[in-house]
Amino acid sequence: LLKGEGSLPVNIKFCFEGQEEIGSPQIPGFLAKHKELFACDLAVSADGGQWSNSEGILLVALRGICGLQIDVKGAKTDLHSGMYGGSIRNPAHVLAELLTSMHDANGRITIAGFYDDVVDLTPEERAAIARVPFDEELYLDDLGLEATFGEAGFTTRERVWARPTLEVNGMWSGFQGEGVKTVLANEAHAKITCRLVSHQRPGKIVELVTAHVAKHTPPGLTVTVSPQQTSGKPYTVPADHWGNAVVADVLREVYGSEPYHVRSGGSIPITGVFLDELGVYTVSFGFGLDDEGFHAPNEFFRLSSFVKGQAAYCQLLKRFAKG
Amino acid sequence: LLKGEGSLPVNIKFCFEGQEEIGSPQIPGFLAKHKELFACDLAVSADGGQWSNSEGILLVALRGICGLQIDVKGAKTDLHSGMYGGSIRNPAHVLAELLTSMHDANGRITIAGFYDDVVDLTPEERAAIARVPFDEELYLDDLGLEATFGEAGFTTRERVWARPTLEVNGMWSGFQGEGVKTVLANEAHAKITCRLVSHQRPGKIVELVTAHVAKHTPPGLTVTVSPQQTSGKPYTVPADHWGNAVVADVLREVYGSEPYHVRSGGSIPITGVFLDELGVYTVSFGFGLDDEGFHAPNEFFRLSSFVKGQAAYCQLLKRFAKG
Repeated sequence: LLKGEGSLPVNIKFCFEGQEEIGSPQIPGFLAKHKELFACDLAVSADGGQWSNSEGILLVALRGICGLQIDVKGAKTDLHSGMYGGSIRNPAHVLAELLTSMHDANGRITIAGFYDDVVDLTPEERAAIARVPFDEELYLDDLGLEATFGEAGFTTRERVWARPTLEVNGMWSGFQGEGVKTVLANEAHAKITCRLVSHQRPGKIVELVTAHVAKHTPPGLTVTVSPQQTSGKPYTVPADHWGNAVVADVLREVYGSEPYHVRSGGSIPITGVFLDELGVYTVSFGFGLDDEGFHAPNEFFRLSSFVKGQAAYCQLLKRFAKG
Repeated sequence: LLKGEGSLPVNIKFCFEGQEEIGSPQIPGFLAKHKELFACDLAVSADGGQWSNSEGILLVALRGICGLQIDVKGAKTDLHSGMYGGSIRNPAHVLAELLTSMHDANGRITIAGFYDDVVDLTPEERAAIARVPFDEELYLDDLGLEATFGEAGFTTRERVWARPTLEVNGMWSGFQGEGVKTVLANEAHAKITCRLVSHQRPGKIVELVTAHVAKHTPPGLTVTVSPQQTSGKPYTVPADHWGNAVVADVLREVYGSEPYHVRSGGSIPITGVFLDELGVYTVSFGFGLDDEGFHAPNEFFRLSSFVKGQAAYCQLLKRFAKG
């Protein structure tokens, strides 16, 4: 636009931030300190994609996140499982019991208060999710699995896009080598992240999990819960927000069809930070496609999407200028 | 004796075997093949100890052992916990649930049939165990623990010496590094050993655990149980067996007091192999002491015990000769 028309139709401020994958620990403080420098009417994020080469999406919600580590400590040292097995608590057993106690048999989280701040989906929102194409058989086939599983009363899409989760990302205790070692380890560990939806707050969820662990810790050993740095509020932007209306207009022009209203099971914590610190919503306007291997080796971006994206961004700025 | 008296009072055959710590996979076949070469009236094992520098023990039972590994496999690859969390089974959760399902809240093993072949202790055997000194406070203090735990209805000594166990020796899944990785791992693993008492059999116990895992495996993923090479039958020798009577006589002379009748929570699988293959009991006649760091760095053996043991072995052989 600058080259072709000599000027931009609206004022633009760019914000490049390189710590997204480690939880952006410094950005909230930085934005708070420089509110005037970042003052704006709307944020546009290029972190996003489109449904396919021929269909667009409007991203209306992202899940939040919090992380924690559980450490179970028993005896002073590892012990001989023959000499001590059966007479004292095994930290590996205690960890397994703690993790098991966090879900019921139907995949619902059993931590007291966990769902208190979850805003239920409206019938309209459920209908919007159901309108987005989803082939469960293909989904399972891609994963090499035979069945889905999750909170009863929700579709697979709803579970991933609009319900909170508590997932173990890692756990370890004792001997992991070849063969047998008759050890009774004195430590066991697990890493957990929870995905959150409106109006859950990361700090409160960590507190609830910590209280659950304390309540379920058997006597005679020590269990600690450490909050991890990764943290982000859930984010929702109304589908009919003026920023989204403009994005939808442009996408209709680009693809000739109505964009799907989608949510993401993942998290882009800065969307919540912009809302908190600058009081502005973020609309997603990106052109990645699902087969481009996000975060994987050989991740790529189509050259054709560069061309399409550049043109679309020009359109977007012009429409913003029209108000 | 050979040097001092020129001849031995009984015939002795020596058997040195170097695979004990890896489960002696070759010895049963070897003994079966050379029964005549090994034919004897009694086996004497130097793998054992005494109660203290001034008190002796008669070892009347050792627990058996079997080992297995559980492998849970889910999707084709590790997945993004935001994009898939909450919609499919997490192998780490499934493993935790499987492990938890193997004990009740009182530490009793819940695997169907697990206790079927356990021979209950007689009142006399329980009394013999109770007669052996045990200071629970000192036991906990040594371990740095605040409470013991185990199968209800049994003392700590009974749990370790005369009841079977199922202990996780190791488990692992997903991310174990610093910080957070929002991965939904596609595998989870655990290593288990069971200590067995009469008349439990290692092969049957592995089958029972395998059946339990199969029954508790949720649909949609694969769980396999692999038996490990380590395997040994529980071993009991009557306290009043003639071999033990001779051992007790010698110990009375050495220490001037009645030896304690003790059992071991650990396993010496060859005792069961000698019984099966050669039809002879093994009596334990060793002079190690508890503070000598068995299997630990800086393990040692008192020089005074060498002297005492040599003299005691001479006594033992002479008494055997008396019949």
